[in-house]
Amino acid sequence: MTNRAKPVIAVDVMGGDHGPEVVVPGALAALPADFPFDLHLYGAPDAVEAELAKHGSAGLPVAVIPCTQDIEMGESPASAIRSKKDSPIVRAMIDQKAGQVQAVVSAGSTGAMVAASLIILGRIPGVDRPAIGTVIPTVKGELLLLDAGANVQCTADHLVSFARMGNVFAREMMGLATPAIGQLNIGGEPKKGTELNVETFKLLEKSDLNFVGNIEGNQLMLGPCDVVVTDGYTGNNTLKLVEGFARFMGALSKRPDLTAEEQAAFGPILQFLGKNFSYEVKGGAMLLGVSGVSIIAHGRSSVGAISNAVKEAWNQVRKDLPAKLAAGSQ
Amino acid sequence: MTNRAKPVIAVDVMGGDHGPEVVVPGALAALPADFPFDLHLYGAPDAVEAELAKHGSAGLPVAVIPCTQDIEMGESPASAIRSKKDSPIVRAMIDQKAGQVQAVVSAGSTGAMVAASLIILGRIPGVDRPAIGTVIPTVKGELLLLDAGANVQCTADHLVSFARMGNVFAREMMGLATPAIGQLNIGGEPKKGTELNVETFKLLEKSDLNFVGNIEGNQLMLGPCDVVVTDGYTGNNTLKLVEGFARFMGALSKRPDLTAEEQAAFGPILQFLGKNFSYEVKGGAMLLGVSGVSIIAHGRSSVGAISNAVKEAWNQVRKDLPAKLAAGSQ
Repeated sequence: MTNRAKPVIAVDVMGGDHGPEVVVPGALAALPADFPFDLHLYGAPDAVEAELAKHGSAGLPVAVIPCTQDIEMGESPASAIRSKKDSPIVRAMIDQKAGQVQAVVSAGSTGAMVAASLIILGRIPGVDRPAIGTVIPTVKGELLLLDAGANVQCTADHLVSFARMGNVFAREMMGLATPAIGQLNIGGEPKKGTELNVETFKLLEKSDLNFVGNIEGNQLMLGPCDVVVTDGYTGNNTLKLVEGFARFMGALSKRPDLTAEEQAAFGPILQFLGKNFSYEVKGGAMLLGVSGVSIIAHGRSSVGAISNAVKEAWNQVRKDLPAKLAAGSQ
Repeated sequence: MTNRAKPVIAVDVMGGDHGPEVVVPGALAALPADFPFDLHLYGAPDAVEAELAKHGSAGLPVAVIPCTQDIEMGESPASAIRSKKDSPIVRAMIDQKAGQVQAVVSAGSTGAMVAASLIILGRIPGVDRPAIGTVIPTVKGELLLLDAGANVQCTADHLVSFARMGNVFAREMMGLATPAIGQLNIGGEPKKGTELNVETFKLLEKSDLNFVGNIEGNQLMLGPCDVVVTDGYTGNNTLKLVEGFARFMGALSKRPDLTAEEQAAFGPILQFLGKNFSYEVKGGAMLLGVSGVSIIAHGRSSVGAISNAVKEAWNQVRKDLPAKLAAGSQ
């Protein structure tokens, strides 16, 4: 955390399926009563001002940063970053690079957030490939999965670097003294899986990390690991399958062939799952390994999810996570 | 189906976590009242006879095929196949190759079943790489996922061949006139994912199959596809995550922090999931693309799961699935 008067969290209010209507109240709800940070809301000024008026922002440390452009979900990230310099994501990231804001939160295009973070913020020393980290619920608590989608192809050195970053994250943000680190694989033995898996196993076993071995998908949510590393393709597929279970349960509850007892039972279970295991609890993924804080909220984010994403950004700023990731990646 | 007096299903009674105690009654329970096939039980004769005596097999078309060896779960499949010629898997597969049995069912080592099927039975014409097919529950019914683990690395041609086999399977075994075929991927657009995904998308789009595009993990269990193809690494991870979800729900139901209402609701939900979505319903995976029927039951199989695996074997024999897969793979 730089020694400015007060840190600033930048929020892209145009991102996500619902735009300012959800992002503005979500961001406001994240502001603690003692205002430890300022909120800068990047987006179309009329829309943002209208939302602020609706929710009452007088006296709050909130500023509107007008942007004339926006990046659509389907756009090519690299060309969007080049051609849309006045979009919230690009503007906010440039301001973070200049030290004017300390974190950027967006529920917009994941690809654009990754590209803007990489191109504008750059990588921290010792990290060749930043990774998307995402927190997945387990029976015991939660685990950090990375890479959840930034790098479709990875080397063993990348996965070891992800493990180092995950180790720092779990220590600093999850409060674990010695995080248990596993490699997602299709078998437990050291020689199982791809060449990448076999090589990564060897390197992690030799490292000073608390590597507990390979973990299979059927064990993941039982909670034996605090940090699980994998390539971005497998990680993204895994994340989507985990998200899909909640949708599956929701869809099941509407099946016409349920008995009255089953129907009645789905209510409390869906509530329990929603309360404890929804993506809203964490509010999003983050890009770890760039020189700054970059929080990627879910496109379908609700007010509560946006609020949690902004709180996560503030926690990472408060703990100076990028500097600690850099120190742990040497 | 060959024109012998009666088809024979070979069952490895030593395989699985529970051995003859579970496999023998499971196999017996699969025999229809009109005895359309004979059961040949391969294993240690004393153990098999003791189980048969326990369950009463007088008058049933059952024979014991004594074997002096057994393949352990941890053994290297290739060397086990070479060194354990008198194990149930190797003996039964050799007998299938000789036309003495028409299908082999085992809850033993998946690797040994795949290796024995490939080496002893060989591939059907037109199939370069046999694939493990597994039926996964969806909100609407079920889908066939392949490859669920036989080939860690695949080419686009392999995935197209899997799609052709899946198409035949869904038509013949699931009764679908025009199965909807999808590719598992981390995005919907044709250019998403790995090079393998992009190339496979192009080939499937040009094919005469009913290719409905890429499907993401969060859609999988909602049921838009009847057949989903992927490489064996991604498929095995996906299968294990889906299995893990049931375990996760089971473990959640035992959490001490549940309210009385939540605790009460878990009962009917777990029963509902168990009844409709357990691996037991299908009883196992199968190797598609070898010259014969090769059913790989779950290691943890119960009596009911084994019974369903033997019934699946019989259905595949009855419908002469290998010949139809060969015809559909040209």
